[in-house]
Amino acid sequence: MSFLIKPTEIEKKSFEIITQELGSRTFPAGQSEVVKRVIHTTADFDYADNLCFSEDAIDSAKQALMQGATIVTDTNMALSGINKNILAELGGSAHCFMADPEVAAMAKARGVTRAVVSMEYASKIEGNLIFAIGNAPTALIRLHELIREGACRPALVVGVPVGFVNVVESKELFLGGDTPYIIARGRKGGSNVAAAIINAIEYQLVKREGF
Amino acid sequence: MSFLIKPTEIEKKSFEIITQELGSRTFPAGQSEVVKRVIHTTADFDYADNLCFSEDAIDSAKQALMQGATIVTDTNMALSGINKNILAELGGSAHCFMADPEVAAMAKARGVTRAVVSMEYASKIEGNLIFAIGNAPTALIRLHELIREGACRPALVVGVPVGFVNVVESKELFLGGDTPYIIARGRKGGSNVAAAIINAIEYQLVKREGF
Repeated sequence: MSFLIKPTEIEKKSFEIITQELGSRTFPAGQSEVVKRVIHTTADFDYADNLCFSEDAIDSAKQALMQGATIVTDTNMALSGINKNILAELGGSAHCFMADPEVAAMAKARGVTRAVVSMEYASKIEGNLIFAIGNAPTALIRLHELIREGACRPALVVGVPVGFVNVVESKELFLGGDTPYIIARGRKGGSNVAAAIINAIEYQLVKREGF
Repeated sequence: MSFLIKPTEIEKKSFEIITQELGSRTFPAGQSEVVKRVIHTTADFDYADNLCFSEDAIDSAKQALMQGATIVTDTNMALSGINKNILAELGGSAHCFMADPEVAAMAKARGVTRAVVSMEYASKIEGNLIFAIGNAPTALIRLHELIREGACRPALVVGVPVGFVNVVESKELFLGGDTPYIIARGRKGGSNVAAAIINAIEYQLVKREGF
């Protein structure tokens, strides 16, 4: 094994393997990059079937990112995985309110999850909003309510919580709705998947060094 | 769907479902908690088959953590996912050198990955060392060399890079060796998996609120 394979070369080769193993399966332009990057992140080809896109999801997200968007995550891990350099180049920024002491105090006082309060905070942000939810079903459920109430109108909701309780149902809320969405149906997902989806859209907008 | 289910309750219920779906499959004490937490993190039952433990892995890691260990990751995402409060309670800390400008400069000058240089940095840390590698095969390969050269003697190597190039081979290097290891055989793994494994061991040592 050689150490001299560059990370860019490894990534290119990995995407070739993924494309090859997907065989005759094809996806619409823009979505294809997302599906492949999620498989690249997880080595799990189930995502070729799990990922559901609203028709306008990629275009809406691209437009928002090009204008400078605020991305809100429900974990610091997802925040950590998002390419924030490219996001900043495009005039945007990413935030997670889960570890905010004020959010924690309010959640405790009201007997709700910090994810619920985080979404309420985020809904007040002006400008283009993108949500990247990879962990908390309650974030997705509260976000769905806030949208229905007219409190916010996201350019994209990435809804990919992982798990066994409330997860499947929370994701189904968005399917077929008016809000642009990328949802991982079923139990699978995660903060890494949420970050990968955001990055896959970013990388369609900015040429990365070596690619 | 109710918002009032507490995160602790959701986690308990999730582990009940995982245990139930694992059916008659059982794992040694200490390893069982790791397998279930990784499934909890990924909703992917493949890890019940993929995860390989050296016989001394859990005991060695527990002993190191109880004495105050340094955990080194190969991504900020894994670092972000590790429960650092409990680690600090035990007198330990966690670090990632991947974004260190000095590491980047040295990697560029030598034509190697930052992961390689990161491992060399980490190998010089005194005291109990635990590696949590969820991304870079080159980190694992270089770490294996450093151990053979006697540069360091980790209390545990968590080797769970994900991907399609060099990944499978880099993980196989540790199987059956003298260094205590937890390896995810095959392509699957990730920073989230690395963090989940560390947390699953931490949570065996410290009682968490609500559990």
